[in-house]
Parts: sequence; structure tokens; C-alpha cells
Amino acid sequence: MAEYQVRHMKWWGWGDEEVTFSDVDKPKLWPYLRGELGLDEDCITPPVSFEEIKLPPVKVNEPFVSVLKTALQDDQLSAGKKDRLIHSAGKAFRDLLRLRNGQVDSAPDLIVYPSSEDDVVAIIKAANQHNAVVIPFGGGTNIAGCLEPKDRDGRFIVSMDMCRMNRVLNVDKKSLVARIQPGVYGPHMEEQLEAEGVTLGHFPDSFVHSTLGGWVATRSAGMQSDKYGKIEDMVIALRMVTPSGTIVTRTVPNTSNGIDVRSLCIGSEGILGVITELTMQVHRLPEFKMFEGWLFPDFEKGVRAIHECMRLGVMPVITRLNDPGKTALSAAFKKPDSGLKATIGGLMKWYLRSVKGFDFSQSCMMTTAYEGDYDTFHMQRRESAYIFRKHGGVCLGEGPGKSFQEAKYDFPHVRDYLMDRGVMGDVSETSTTWDNLLNLYTKTLANIDRAIRDTGVDPWVGCHISHNYHTGASLYFTFGCRKIEGKELEQYLYIKKAAEDSFMQNGGTLSHHHAVGTEHLPWIEEDISPVGVKAVESLKSGLDPKGVMNPGKIIPGPNPLQEWGLNNEVIKSFERAD
Amino acid sequence: MAEYQVRHMKWWGWGDEEVTFSDVDKPKLWPYLRGELGLDEDCITPPVSFEEIKLPPVKVNEPFVSVLKTALQDDQLSAGKKDRLIHSAGKAFRDLLRLRNGQVDSAPDLIVYPSSEDDVVAIIKAANQHNAVVIPFGGGTNIAGCLEPKDRDGRFIVSMDMCRMNRVLNVDKKSLVARIQPGVYGPHMEEQLEAEGVTLGHFPDSFVHSTLGGWVATRSAGMQSDKYGKIEDMVIALRMVTPSGTIVTRTVPNTSNGIDVRSLCIGSEGILGVITELTMQVHRLPEFKMFEGWLFPDFEKGVRAIHECMRLGVMPVITRLNDPGKTALSAAFKKPDSGLKATIGGLMKWYLRSVKGFDFSQSCMMTTAYEGDYDTFHMQRRESAYIFRKHGGVCLGEGPGKSFQEAKYDFPHVRDYLMDRGVMGDVSETSTTWDNLLNLYTKTLANIDRAIRDTGVDPWVGCHISHNYHTGASLYFTFGCRKIEGKELEQYLYIKKAAEDSFMQNGGTLSHHHAVGTEHLPWIEEDISPVGVKAVESLKSGLDPKGVMNPGKIIPGPNPLQEWGLNNEVIKSFERAD
Repeated sequence: MAEYQVRHMKWWGWGDEEVTFSDVDKPKLWPYLRGELGLDEDCITPPVSFEEIKLPPVKVNEPFVSVLKTALQDDQLSAGKKDRLIHSAGKAFRDLLRLRNGQVDSAPDLIVYPSSEDDVVAIIKAANQHNAVVIPFGGGTNIAGCLEPKDRDGRFIVSMDMCRMNRVLNVDKKSLVARIQPGVYGPHMEEQLEAEGVTLGHFPDSFVHSTLGGWVATRSAGMQSDKYGKIEDMVIALRMVTPSGTIVTRTVPNTSNGIDVRSLCIGSEGILGVITELTMQVHRLPEFKMFEGWLFPDFEKGVRAIHECMRLGVMPVITRLNDPGKTALSAAFKKPDSGLKATIGGLMKWYLRSVKGFDFSQSCMMTTAYEGDYDTFHMQRRESAYIFRKHGGVCLGEGPGKSFQEAKYDFPHVRDYLMDRGVMGDVSETSTTWDNLLNLYTKTLANIDRAIRDTGVDPWVGCHISHNYHTGASLYFTFGCRKIEGKELEQYLYIKKAAEDSFMQNGGTLSHHHAVGTEHLPWIEEDISPVGVKAVESLKSGLDPKGVMNPGKIIPGPNPLQEWGLNNEVIKSFERAD
Repeated sequence: MAEYQVRHMKWWGWGDEEVTFSDVDKPKLWPYLRGELGLDEDCITPPVSFEEIKLPPVKVNEPFVSVLKTALQDDQLSAGKKDRLIHSAGKAFRDLLRLRNGQVDSAPDLIVYPSSEDDVVAIIKAANQHNAVVIPFGGGTNIAGCLEPKDRDGRFIVSMDMCRMNRVLNVDKKSLVARIQPGVYGPHMEEQLEAEGVTLGHFPDSFVHSTLGGWVATRSAGMQSDKYGKIEDMVIALRMVTPSGTIVTRTVPNTSNGIDVRSLCIGSEGILGVITELTMQVHRLPEFKMFEGWLFPDFEKGVRAIHECMRLGVMPVITRLNDPGKTALSAAFKKPDSGLKATIGGLMKWYLRSVKGFDFSQSCMMTTAYEGDYDTFHMQRRESAYIFRKHGGVCLGEGPGKSFQEAKYDFPHVRDYLMDRGVMGDVSETSTTWDNLLNLYTKTLANIDRAIRDTGVDPWVGCHISHNYHTGASLYFTFGCRKIEGKELEQYLYIKKAAEDSFMQNGGTLSHHHAVGTEHLPWIEEDISPVGVKAVESLKSGLDPKGVMNPGKIIPGPNPLQEWGLNNEVIKSFERAD
């Protein structure tokens, strides 16, 4: 098989270096945002150039580096500026802000590219022996600070980029399990699986640029999770190299062998070790697949419709419901219709407003997808359509579905687009039970809105639902506002805190699928309880007694909020402004 | 609500004290077993009487007991003989053997009956302070040694019987989650849930006598797991009191909050703490429900039929497939037919043999159940029947289904029946992928058969499949043979070892739903790897640094096989006999 060419993302933002999100074919987008955010005049705030970036000097740990040089090939080690820069951060808002400003306070001292489990063992053994820090790196897409190359003790840091371990090793088509190396990127993995007629069914927004190992280490969710589950539901067995040796679990569908050590590795965010192999549940490729758009009179009716589909066991494989804010934003993304299409669009609007009584300021767009064999596919569509209509939904046909399908991996680009224009934008997501969903939605929307206004600017806030369960669903909030020059980070953290506080106070969780990393550290004790944190610490100190694996993640320090970047003075300065 | 009267099982075997399994209406049973096991003459080997039992003296830990006496009511403490005896063991074969022989080497020194989480906290705090051992006790049904009241250091032992914490505290009918106390027995829990129109859907063979907390602590599976999942799939949130404090997780359908601490508590078999509250996913009661029997020409065809149902997403809620051995045993359980029924039975047999070409020495009985609303129920039945027929299955109607339904919780009684008659019988179960299922089945059947013959007696071995997954299924082996007077334990362990070794060597796991306890300790390192065991040890030493919680379970000692009771000499003595 031809060697797969790994392409790292651009160092200052999302996506391939030569790809830029453009609004040329979206004439409504900027006017919409300008209006919502009360921007009087455009300002252009591009990132600094690569040449302007100054990285911190490489630290010295001769004994460690010399072991690595013996154990690995020359091309498996790199301390080049571009490599260090790319591996110095994930894609959290904080990361982008710092990178765009050329403010790179910490960067790994060396990048290593293992190509086998033996390499991984050699690197971790050497790090443990010579007290160097190892940070596993998948695609670098994490937005919770999981890749932050910081160490309290100022030790030498290697970023372990897993991209060369990118093979689907084996597919058992009868049992539908596949042994896969963790460094494989989404598209490359699906390509190899597709050749065997199967799919993992995991398509997170980051799919193009993230890796299987990263998904498992952060408990990722893909847009078809309603059918295929979250990534943790798909892991049948794994191998994880820790400083104390390698954890190996058996390829069995289920077991009662005490505490499930497989589940200790899932979501461990690199703090215990590096996953070197995953045996995943896979599925036969569906025969039929289709995307469709629906419009609901309001958010509550859309939520009710999804819940009823779930209750009756007739869920489409995607039901992604936008609230009114997100619906308006989506509409602003649209290419202009011309000729007949525009006429039909106009007639449709007239019909919805006049005949169906839609209030467009409240209406909510839902994207759905159906897949399966002939029977399943048609049953899903027929039964869910019946329920959607019962709750006031109107089918918009395949058009909006197609638009979603074409643009589904583009959304993370928008943050860069906004940051180029003096605007900050980010996301916070959670989950809760059905009974509490609208309560948590309403309160969090209001809390984020209020927090942004506290900082003295106009808010834009929206939300969508995209992962549904028997007992509840996720809520994914997106927010944006004009940034306050020179105080961007404090402003951002103040708003982010409002969202996370709201999750904690109103029955949510700190994140449904973005991990803890450093960005959610202030809430981890409240989320899993102090003794829950102690359990995680016990694992950490037992398997990684010297603390060489990805320090500073999941387990909070003594003053998490201050270490995160907020103190009471800053908080009060905004509250006073209210 | 009226106080629920807890009834402990008889101390010497399965079930209520006044219930004895009888073969009066099963005239074929004993002749069948006698023939299979080559028993020339009947021998009667009843258990010793209660009066004959001598318990070890109560140990002394005055400071501890005095704290308990202050913290709890008088009726929450017991050191009575009957209470100590009941709490001195679970229902493993080893337990029954010792109890029936009156050989009670270890027993708890005190039984405590907490009625609130505060009680549990007080007890564990006192135990930790005064170095006493706490063993959580649910219904006492565990067959893997999870309740073994032994301590390497000879400390004072309390058995913490959770039976007074038996309330369904709250049912959220919209989100379908219920907050439930862990000490509730199966029937009492379902009764309380049913009053709210919901069910947990968890019906293990031990249902009548086991508790929710016990199911979660041991990763139990119910007979409808194909629809409702294993118990770990149903836990939404929990509270667990450890010597380091209380772990509390949030009631959310899913999360990405680092390592899932909820899953650290599930399957922890009491070695970290005591579960004091569970928030469980529940389901609306099904409108329709039906049991049915099917006969397949052989085991492989039955397996293929189940696998195809799974692949096509048309699983009944139960598909329990017996192999030829288990099928013959089931037939021996039958009440004699008379009159018209006997004539029809005879005709059916003639039809199957002569027209369908069935070889009854190879044919396999499958019990199925269907449930749901009208559409789901009929779809399940229609679609699965089509697949069963395609693989040579013949529908036997509701009769055999009804027999199964009536007797479904009786099977564990049979061990006592056998032990009364000089026969030993036990079970060992595992799971594997579809691709490996028949291989593991064939090899394990042969290995158990060979091991029994090694001990110089005739074997009976059978197997059934009752838990199915996308990627594989469980295999549940039952075996029996004449016991060798005076060498029963060694003989049993030698046979049990053959089963477990076979699971390890042929791609299984040490247990699919019976836990590790003490009985599976010799295989835990091979099952979850030595570093996996180290992970569990890390949790144990972090949360329970003094080792007061249920010592000796899950984590093996230095010589697990010897501690289990087998040494090379014994093994060779049997192998030589071959």
C-alpha cells in the first residue's frame, strides 16, 4: 500500500494550510454577523506571520535525547521550528488567540514520530528513566487544551505524533471488528475500511483532521452517534503503553472481569499512557443513504419530535436540530438562489408564513439523515416523517440536506474567519436528561448572553442538538461577539465560565464530547466529585508515578480558576460593567 | 409504603428455606442423569443440620464495635449464628460444598444493616479508623467468591447487608431514569417500578434473590440483555462510599469528563467501596410479550440464525439457544404429556424425524421472547421467524416458551438437587466474537469433557447461548459428574480449571457476567494483563489505602492457583489417571 502522506493543519487555525474559508459565495454572512454583533466598522486582525513567531529555546536533556537517537531513525525526530510550532497547541480558542498574536510561551522541545508499539515503548521508557514529559499528539484538533505543552517542573517535553501508525491491520468481516492503529486520520481510516466493505460510523466535525486514537482518548462523538454510538461504545479491545508497562485487553464483546480496565484507558487524555492499538466494532456499509432538511415552528416542538422518535425507536441516523439563532446563522451561510429556485423559495416562505403560521424568528432548522438497507432506510424515513409532521415540522427536501452534507466539516473554519475580523467565537457543549433539556437550554442561553453583555458588547448565541439518547441529549452552544482589544482572553474566559457554570448549576456536564484538558479543569471536581478526582489521581500515580505523561490535564491544581486565567478582580470588573 | 420483608436464602443452598426443588413431576430427570453420569446406585448426601454447624469464634475489636453501637440502632447489628452463617458465603460450588459439610472456616464477626447512606459512611469510616474489614452483601447469590469473608491479616470482619436500602426513590417518566437504592431485590424493585409504568428490564437467573447493587458491582447480565443491555449499560449515575469519601457522578446521558469514574465503580466487587444509590435507565412496560420455542437441526444452524437476526437488526428480546446436551437435559425436565398432548408430541417427533430429517441427538432447542408495542412485537416475530426457518428452525409454539417462563428462575436449584445425590454440577461462562464462537464452544466442551474423564468418572457437559452482541455472544457451559468422595474440591477445581484455561487459550474471557471474586483470580492477569491488574491495584490503594474493603477479590495474590486450591501434584494426579 502506498505510504499515506500526513498533512498537519495550519499552525494558526483550522484546516489545510492552503484552504481559507471564504464568504465570496455567502453574501449574507458578514452583513448578518455585523448586524447581530453591532459592528460599526470592519477591522481586519490577521495572524502574525510565521517569521515573526519566536519559539522558546529548546531545553536540554542530553541522556534522554541520546537514547531516542539510538532507538529511532533520524526522520522520526524533529526539532524544526514549523514542527515545534504545529505541536505547541491544539485548536482551543485560547490556542488560536495566542498563536495569532505570536505569543508562543511553551512548545515541545522535540517531536517524535513512532512507527510501532516498540517505538512507543522505547520512548516512554526513556522518558520515564530520564524524567522527560511525553504528550501524545493525534491530529492536533483538540479544543480543550489537551495538548498544552506545559510542565510545572519545567522538564524537557516531547510531543509524540502518532501519525505514522495509521494502518487498519485487520478486518474480521464476520464478527465486524477491525484492529486499527491509533494514529490514522478519519478519511484514511474510512478509505481502508471501505475497501473491506465496512465503516466505523464515526464522523465528528473534526473528522478530516483528527485521529482514531485522539477520539478514544477524549471520548469523542460523531454526527451519526444516534446510530453508531459514541466512540467509547465502539471500542472492543485496546493496547495502551504506560510508564508501568502495556495494558492489553481481550477481543470479546463483553465481560465481567472486575473493573473494566478498557474504560480506564478511554478518555484518559494521555495522562496514563499512549494507546497503540484499537480493536473497534465496525458496520457493513449502508446500501441507502440520504440527507434531508426540516423546519419546525419552534425549538421545543423540534425537541419533542426528536424525543418521540427516540421513544418509538425510529431515529434517523442524524437529527441535528438548530435553535432559532443557529437557524438564522445557517441561513446566512446560504448561497444566493437565482431564477426559478428563488421564486420557489419565495413561495415556500409565503406558504409557511401565511398558511402554516410560521414565525421565522422562532423557527428551527433540522438536518436529518437516513441510512441502511432498503427496509430500514424507508422505515426510518416514513416513521420519523410522520412524527416530525405531527409536531409541526415541514419537510424542506433534500436541498438543505445536501448543503449540510457538502459543508459538514467546514464549520470549525468559521472561528478563524471571525478572528480575522475582530470577532471572537467559540463553543461549549454539554448533555442532560430530556426532562431538563429545555430548562438547561434556556438558562444557559441567557447566561451566555448576559456574560457577553457584561463585557460591554452585543452577543450572538445559538445552540444545536446533535446527539440523542434514550434518557436525554446533548446541547451544543455557539457564541460570538466583538472582542475587546487587549483583553480578549479575560473576556473570552469570562463568557466561557458563564457557560460552564450554567452547565454545573442546571444539571449538565462540563462537556459531552470535547474532553477536560486544561480548559475544563475549574469544573472537574464539581462534575465527578472530589473523590472521583482522587480516583483518577490514584490511577495516575499508580501507572505513571513520575508524572511524565501529559501533565496538567484532567487533574486540577490547587487553584484551578486562577491557573485557568481568571481571578475575582477580572470577574468583578466585568460584573461591575453590567 | 409497607415495610418490605427481606428473606435471606437458605444457608446451605439456593432459594427460600422452605422451597425444595422436586423431581416428582419430572419422572425422566433422574433416570436421564443416572444414565449419562454412569451412576450404578443412588446415594443420598444431604447437608449437615444447622445444629451441627460450628462457626469460628467472633473476633474482638471493641473500639470499632462501640462506634457502631453508637452510630446505629440495636436492630441494625447482629452476631447471631444464623445471620453469621448466611453471610459467611455466596453460592459458589466451593461455598455449597463447605456449607453442606459443615466446614465453615471463616464467617463475618458482625452483620450490619445500614438504612441510609449516612449509616454506610459511618460504618466505613469506623472500619477505616479501627482497621476492620467491610464486605458489602446484596442478596448473597454470587457464585465467584465475591463474599468470601477472609482477610490475610485476620482482622475483624463486618458483612454489610444492604437489604434495608430497598426503595425506588424517584422515577422521571419523561427521561426514563429512576433513582434506586442498591439493596433492593429484583422482584421488589420491579414491583415499585411497575407502579410507575416502567421496568429496568434486567432479569438474571438470580433475579428473585439478588439485588441491584450486587448486579452493578459484578457486571451482571439479564436474560433480556439483547434488548436492554448488560447492567453496566443501564447505569446513568451513581453514588459510592469509599474509605476516602463518596464518589458522586451526574445524571447525564453521556459525557466527556476524562476517565469515566462511573465505570470504575461498576464491577468493583466491593473492593473500593459500597454503592449507595444508582440512577438507572428504565423503559416503559411493553404492551405485548410472548415466549416461544424453536428447534434447530444442530447447534451451528442455531448460532447462524441468531447471528443473522443480529446483523439485520431483528433480534427477539430473548434468544436462548441450548446445545444438544442442554437440549436433552431440558427435555428430561419435562412433565409427562398425557392423552391428546402425548399423541401430538409423538406425531411432531415423527414429522421432524421422517419429513424434516432431524437427528435428535444433534437438535437444539431455542427459547425466544418478543415484546414491545404492536408494530415492534409483530415485526420482531415475523422477521426473526423468517430467519429461523431459513436456517432449518421449526417452531414448537408457545408451549416450550411457557415452560421456560414458568421455570426460568428455578435452574440454580438443580445444583442442590445434584449435591443431595452424590453428583457435582456447576457452570462456567464466557464470551467471544462470532468468528470464534464455534471454535471456542467445541474446544471448551472437549476440554471439560476430558477433565471430568481425567478424574475417573463419566461427564455430562452442555452449553447455551443467551447474550448476543453485534460482534459476538456469550457461551454458558454447565457440567456435572459423580463426585469423588473426599476429593470433591480438588476434583471440582480441576474441572473448573479446564474450562477457564480453555477460555484463555481460545479467545474467551474469564467470565461474561459472574465477576472475578476469588474463584477467577488465577486467570485475571491473563485476562486484563498484568498492567491492567496494576491499574486496579492503583485504584484500590488510592481509595482504600488500608485495604479494609472486601480484601482478596479481583486482585490476585502471589500464587493464585495454589491459593485457589490446586497445586501441581493434584493436577498431575488427575492427569496421570488419564
